[in-house]
Amino acid sequence: MRIVLDAMGTDGAPETEVAGAVRALRELEKDIEIVLVGNQDILQAEVARHDDLPLDRLHLEHAPDRVLPGEASASVLRKHPESSIVKGLRLQREGEADAFVSAGSTGAVMAASLLILKSLEGVDRPAIGTVLPTAKEPVLMLDAGANVDCKPHHLVQFAHLGNIYAQDLMGRERPRIGLVNIGEEPEKGDELTLEAHQRLARDPGLCFVGNIEGREIIQGSCDVLVCDGFVGNVLLKFYESVAQFIVGYLRRHLQRASTQVELDEALYVLDYSEYGGAPLLGVNGVSIICHGGSSPNAIRNAIRVAAQAVRTEMVEHVTRELRSKEPA
Amino acid sequence: MRIVLDAMGTDGAPETEVAGAVRALRELEKDIEIVLVGNQDILQAEVARHDDLPLDRLHLEHAPDRVLPGEASASVLRKHPESSIVKGLRLQREGEADAFVSAGSTGAVMAASLLILKSLEGVDRPAIGTVLPTAKEPVLMLDAGANVDCKPHHLVQFAHLGNIYAQDLMGRERPRIGLVNIGEEPEKGDELTLEAHQRLARDPGLCFVGNIEGREIIQGSCDVLVCDGFVGNVLLKFYESVAQFIVGYLRRHLQRASTQVELDEALYVLDYSEYGGAPLLGVNGVSIICHGGSSPNAIRNAIRVAAQAVRTEMVEHVTRELRSKEPA
Repeated sequence: MRIVLDAMGTDGAPETEVAGAVRALRELEKDIEIVLVGNQDILQAEVARHDDLPLDRLHLEHAPDRVLPGEASASVLRKHPESSIVKGLRLQREGEADAFVSAGSTGAVMAASLLILKSLEGVDRPAIGTVLPTAKEPVLMLDAGANVDCKPHHLVQFAHLGNIYAQDLMGRERPRIGLVNIGEEPEKGDELTLEAHQRLARDPGLCFVGNIEGREIIQGSCDVLVCDGFVGNVLLKFYESVAQFIVGYLRRHLQRASTQVELDEALYVLDYSEYGGAPLLGVNGVSIICHGGSSPNAIRNAIRVAAQAVRTEMVEHVTRELRSKEPA
Repeated sequence: MRIVLDAMGTDGAPETEVAGAVRALRELEKDIEIVLVGNQDILQAEVARHDDLPLDRLHLEHAPDRVLPGEASASVLRKHPESSIVKGLRLQREGEADAFVSAGSTGAVMAASLLILKSLEGVDRPAIGTVLPTAKEPVLMLDAGANVDCKPHHLVQFAHLGNIYAQDLMGRERPRIGLVNIGEEPEKGDELTLEAHQRLARDPGLCFVGNIEGREIIQGSCDVLVCDGFVGNVLLKFYESVAQFIVGYLRRHLQRASTQVELDEALYVLDYSEYGGAPLLGVNGVSIICHGGSSPNAIRNAIRVAAQAVRTEMVEHVTRELRSKEPA
């Protein structure tokens, strides 16, 4: 299989991306080929710094342009047709590749993915999934920011998208679906969650476990957490920053060097890079969005996740499931 | 001044409340009198366990009934007219006391406060404020759960309520007001926050510093954080649980006893009980809501906050400010 890696996305591009690709080629399954998209001269120089590469599985695709952070994402196709994001996604669209990974601007990757790959039939609004560490197993939360102002049936679609991702990519046989809400009881919530709760509860294709309060999220009492993109985005960013804050605080206040080492080990569980990027779910293809601050290891793991989505035929799985659903 | 303390609210009632009241009487200003409301026989027995009390400043008010957790809060007045919450709030309403503190069910305290104390003129929806620890100074977030499905002008009212609380109770001269949102730019957000941003930005009575993303909350870059009650409730409960999760995780993984002691000291900053309860802002009186799991120290601190609200004439301050505002 071929996985396209946007080489111009991270803060440390393209060194970080190339290093991540090298790790992936060395450590992951040998049927994986990687297409690095970016400025060819720079990429060639960067690749040359690594020895003993399996060059038959590493390809370069020239993209002279790059989408910079903060640019309006809606016009990315028109303004940046030669960018690594647009050219990379087109490779997948044209059947030259099976998946796309980028640490570029989330808005730009999302907008370009929607325009180039298109939504799957039965999906009104593709959603960004994100894996959160919990006290038990990691949980997939979606939507993490693609859609604000959702309707109840959008949340039901998110539940189905998450249901399949949790099965195919996280090994959960019958994923427990929870709804982020302000109380456990079905009659708690705002207009959106009250109605979404009813719909989720009567959906025979889902194992709905009910409302999940803020304090329960971290308990890991479900596999998929459904919320609108506003709440999901605030929660995700808040979680990352609270974890960093507490860890930073402790690092300053726990003086002993041996304790620092222990702290590093203990905090491994909170390391997002293990989970490998946030999938855009509901598009006709595989598109994985990574942090701009990703490490080579995070890039490697995102490639691993992309490969697994291809291997499990996740997109076909979503297509089958949603086609069989009656309209909401 | 007289502060009413619902003695039947915490999980450890009334021992916890009586112990908290005793601390408050001993440690806070000597013009504070406390009225404990609950079952008189039980309270008398509990009070008798403490020596050397300033009994001239400690009063008991009999309330034979108690609102239990999980009861429908809307009917609390009708179903529990003799409860400690209802009788306690009536004391304030009738001028027998200046403030009310309770660790009972948030919904019940809120509903009873609204019905008995009433909203202030110019306040459509009173809001629950809650103080969050940050990397710098604590920030007041509101609404923390009283109102879901808000309109933009509600968020502007929350901003004004928070503005006054931050001045009078937190010593912030010109509080910086932030809006919880999914991006820094004014054009980011959902329908609610887009419009609220515009209104906040053109309000001459507020020092609006713009949108605050999830990751910025913990930085402490503002004094008052405005959001609807759904987002605020999820954030608050999530914060508490993430902090507990990380701390618990570290406690298990950092073995050395001396490190555990260091950990305790370091985590003092995350101790909510220091901040003393969540005020219900916008009602015609002082009503402070505490956690059901409050310690005596948390109760003491809530009494301190209630006394400060009385001393600074916070309610009159809100009345002045909001009366002068044009209707939104």
